[in-house]
Amino acid sequence: MQPIARGDNAMNELREYSAVAATYFQGLQERICKALEVFEPKQRFHFDFWEREDGGSISGGGGRSGVLKNGDIFEQAGVNFSEVHGTLPAEMVARLGGSPEPTPFRATGISLVIHPRSPLVPTTHANFRYLVVGERRWFGGGADLTPYYLNESDARHFHSEFKKGCDRHDPGYYPRFKKWCDEYFYLPHRGETRGVGGIFFDYLGRDNAEVLPATWSFIQDIGNQFVPAYAPLVEQHRYDLYTEQQREFQLYRRGRYVEFNLLYDRGTMFGLQTKGRTESILMSLPPLVRWEYDFKPEPGSAEELMLKTVKETRDWV
Amino acid sequence: MQPIARGDNAMNELREYSAVAATYFQGLQERICKALEVFEPKQRFHFDFWEREDGGSISGGGGRSGVLKNGDIFEQAGVNFSEVHGTLPAEMVARLGGSPEPTPFRATGISLVIHPRSPLVPTTHANFRYLVVGERRWFGGGADLTPYYLNESDARHFHSEFKKGCDRHDPGYYPRFKKWCDEYFYLPHRGETRGVGGIFFDYLGRDNAEVLPATWSFIQDIGNQFVPAYAPLVEQHRYDLYTEQQREFQLYRRGRYVEFNLLYDRGTMFGLQTKGRTESILMSLPPLVRWEYDFKPEPGSAEELMLKTVKETRDWV
Repeated sequence: MQPIARGDNAMNELREYSAVAATYFQGLQERICKALEVFEPKQRFHFDFWEREDGGSISGGGGRSGVLKNGDIFEQAGVNFSEVHGTLPAEMVARLGGSPEPTPFRATGISLVIHPRSPLVPTTHANFRYLVVGERRWFGGGADLTPYYLNESDARHFHSEFKKGCDRHDPGYYPRFKKWCDEYFYLPHRGETRGVGGIFFDYLGRDNAEVLPATWSFIQDIGNQFVPAYAPLVEQHRYDLYTEQQREFQLYRRGRYVEFNLLYDRGTMFGLQTKGRTESILMSLPPLVRWEYDFKPEPGSAEELMLKTVKETRDWV
Repeated sequence: MQPIARGDNAMNELREYSAVAATYFQGLQERICKALEVFEPKQRFHFDFWEREDGGSISGGGGRSGVLKNGDIFEQAGVNFSEVHGTLPAEMVARLGGSPEPTPFRATGISLVIHPRSPLVPTTHANFRYLVVGERRWFGGGADLTPYYLNESDARHFHSEFKKGCDRHDPGYYPRFKKWCDEYFYLPHRGETRGVGGIFFDYLGRDNAEVLPATWSFIQDIGNQFVPAYAPLVEQHRYDLYTEQQREFQLYRRGRYVEFNLLYDRGTMFGLQTKGRTESILMSLPPLVRWEYDFKPEPGSAEELMLKTVKETRDWV
């Protein structure tokens, strides 16, 4: 591909992000899976290649789902890559800020959710994506941490690593994306955030194509921050002893994860509404979950502290 | 209250359903809880009275939640009564078929979900409700059965009992409401019905207030059919022996229940959007649930039969 000057030809150049982003996301999937496997004595990631079933007007593309099941450290870890295209229904285009008519789209991204077995190792989620809808294109993504027991130094570390990635590109990014994350990963029916947050951003470049090259560089940088942000927490806590009661609380709190993903998560909605592969989309759901009517933690307990922590937002760095 | 002739005064008469329906639904809650307790050696229903928290423009009312937790037979049984009122936001009114402007509403109903411990006893749900939105009012409801292992005679019994209740009022009701149930309790992302169905109906009387008195009589009759439809299945299977593998399959299939309730169920949406009591609304979620990536049943197994059964709809009576 020849270098193309900005201006009239910028659109041609931008179209190419779909291919390069897909390549980067696949590589990132590979690297993240390898970094997590380091902690597992036996279990390995298994990869499924899949093609999107024809959903009428919406069709095309596929992906590669990486899943590690029943590990000693990871009860379930899912790292998905997908690259899909087709035509979005009018109402979905409207929701994405376009004029409400069926519009061609292309979406490529990586999405991961890690459910450790131990309640002392936090759950995490990350997602980075590139979308083309008609003539508009943008990047979105983020990463957030959901501990079952609050460890302030873990939260600080996770946030610091992503702040570093943000600061290299724009000192305004981290405060903006940290706030966006607190607002996005919020369960209104519980009045709770999902965990201790992280960063979240969407529509970067949608209304100003000039910023796309800089945004693309930011996306790669922030994607590369995932392993240094999360792996040290696994390293540090994976052999910490825990009680049966702590395990029960973890299963209970996992219920909130399910509630968020099925009631509010845009990625889950987008995937299901565009007839993506259900098993890959719902890989984010925890392997074992408990609901308990009107659960109340012991006053002064670590469980109560966690429930209080998600009732408010905090600055971690 | 004096008897009022039909015609101009019909509206005054109809307003009274809120009060009489609330009384009937509370009595039904009582009777259903007592009928279920018969099967439990030790555990009993506990009742919580609650008042709706002020949700800004939406406010008022409350309810009584009956919950039996950790029973020998019922892992969790929740039977809710509620009577709420306030103002519905414009977009919710539009979705209910009214003109899109904030509108006063009143809703009273009973809603129950029973999660037995044994995978050989089916899960069931029922809901009966009366809604007033502005000048319109209607009844809705239904009951459906979700077995983990197919037992055709159970499905036939459950359907027959509700068909009896329907046939006493209109021979067209059962076929219409049975089909409506199959269509409503459907998970498009799985291509599956929730179980073996039952009956479902909504908006009865909304567009023709003349039918409300007959509908009200139908609602009471069909509400009374719940115990004879469900209790004999518990009676028959509660001591059937089951394996650990069958229990695992039950936990896996319960995941579909969660997916349906959080992704599609109108009652759950309505409750959460009108800032109802979260613990009472989400009491429908099973106490323990399992998700497994890309689960495939053994060819020829009872698990495969169940998964095939929910891929299509069948006539049971």
